[in-house]
Amino acid sequence: MEGAKHVLVYSGAGQLGTAVAKNFKDKGWVTHCIDFCKNDESDNNVVLSPSESTKENVAKVVHDLKEKRVALDAVVCVAGGWLGGSVKQGSIFDGVDQMWTFNAQSSIAAAHIATNFLKEGGLLVLTGANAALRPTPTMIAYGITKAAIHHLNASLVDPSGGLPKDAAVVGILPICLDTLTNRKSMAQGNFDDWTPLLTVASLLSGWAEGRDRPPSGTLVSIATENKETKFTFVHHSL
Amino acid sequence: MEGAKHVLVYSGAGQLGTAVAKNFKDKGWVTHCIDFCKNDESDNNVVLSPSESTKENVAKVVHDLKEKRVALDAVVCVAGGWLGGSVKQGSIFDGVDQMWTFNAQSSIAAAHIATNFLKEGGLLVLTGANAALRPTPTMIAYGITKAAIHHLNASLVDPSGGLPKDAAVVGILPICLDTLTNRKSMAQGNFDDWTPLLTVASLLSGWAEGRDRPPSGTLVSIATENKETKFTFVHHSL
Repeated sequence: MEGAKHVLVYSGAGQLGTAVAKNFKDKGWVTHCIDFCKNDESDNNVVLSPSESTKENVAKVVHDLKEKRVALDAVVCVAGGWLGGSVKQGSIFDGVDQMWTFNAQSSIAAAHIATNFLKEGGLLVLTGANAALRPTPTMIAYGITKAAIHHLNASLVDPSGGLPKDAAVVGILPICLDTLTNRKSMAQGNFDDWTPLLTVASLLSGWAEGRDRPPSGTLVSIATENKETKFTFVHHSL
Repeated sequence: MEGAKHVLVYSGAGQLGTAVAKNFKDKGWVTHCIDFCKNDESDNNVVLSPSESTKENVAKVVHDLKEKRVALDAVVCVAGGWLGGSVKQGSIFDGVDQMWTFNAQSSIAAAHIATNFLKEGGLLVLTGANAALRPTPTMIAYGITKAAIHHLNASLVDPSGGLPKDAAVVGILPICLDTLTNRKSMAQGNFDDWTPLLTVASLLSGWAEGRDRPPSGTLVSIATENKETKFTFVHHSL
């Protein structure tokens, strides 16, 4: 493994995370998966505890990387969740807390790890949301936490944000991923319009290896139609 | 008080909140102040507990307004706080939790109250940040939570967001307010370039009474130079 490149996948045991880690591993990278359960195919795992805070969990990751003297070439955060509902509903306070933890805190954790462990020229990938480029009145907790991620993405472009020299941050905005969960919950959907996980995984490993990497701060919308996937660089207003 | 208009001020015992509540009261409005301590000049107070969650605290406000059969003409949220630091720092996790509570949760609380208790044609005012219109690499916790508020502001324009008919939401973006706290912490500042609290308070009561109210969803930047305050309607990209 001497000289091999290292990637850390936050939420690396989920459906997209597993596909991303596998794809990097297939290309010869050393994989570090961070999740609430182990990814058995990963070279290294840090298993988080749901009863501990993000701060406590990230401390375990930092300790592990320091102990193993790991320097990372890429950090990919594919953690996140979706929730519907307007701010008028009584459930809003539980909802925003959940979305804050799932979406925002995981992205902050990944950004904290990237700013401390990425090598010069490395890549940080965050997961935003196409929906949050516009108002999200009926999925407000989801929308405001994804808007926070878009702001984080834009804020890490400047070197004072903490990323090392020549490193880049890119936000991916998948519209609908072809996961088992989505096939179960939307069994009537047209799967030809959903993005295969390998398409996203290949895109990310390509960027990490320097192929077609977008400028730092870009948000990349990922839309599939009739089995064809298009990547659109979204104008960022900040 | 029969027929009088009602305003609820979230953080109504702070420096700006006290000025806002006083100004509304001077104009004959009934004031409801929500804060961690009582505003002695307010007609009604709901005192929050710092040891309880936003959800529990808001439940007290909802109970009080229902019990008193209050319908509100305006809800003003001036809660919030500032914090510096990049995502690289070890203190980031405590920092984002604090900013999430101070900035985002208070705005969500005010929006929840507004969507449930505002009358038709009423006004909700949220407090955003001029700085968060651009990347905020060195005050990241502050920036991402204020970006979340800007997204909330944009999302409440559509009726499906929960505001009643003809109600409006407006975000204020003060740059530097002339408060006692700021005079103490920035004693060398040029106070002539700071916005007097009464200027902000008069602006808000004017909008609440229908004078020069901006279109729903507008963010209004408030900048003072040489004792002259300018209000700029910021183009919102969403």
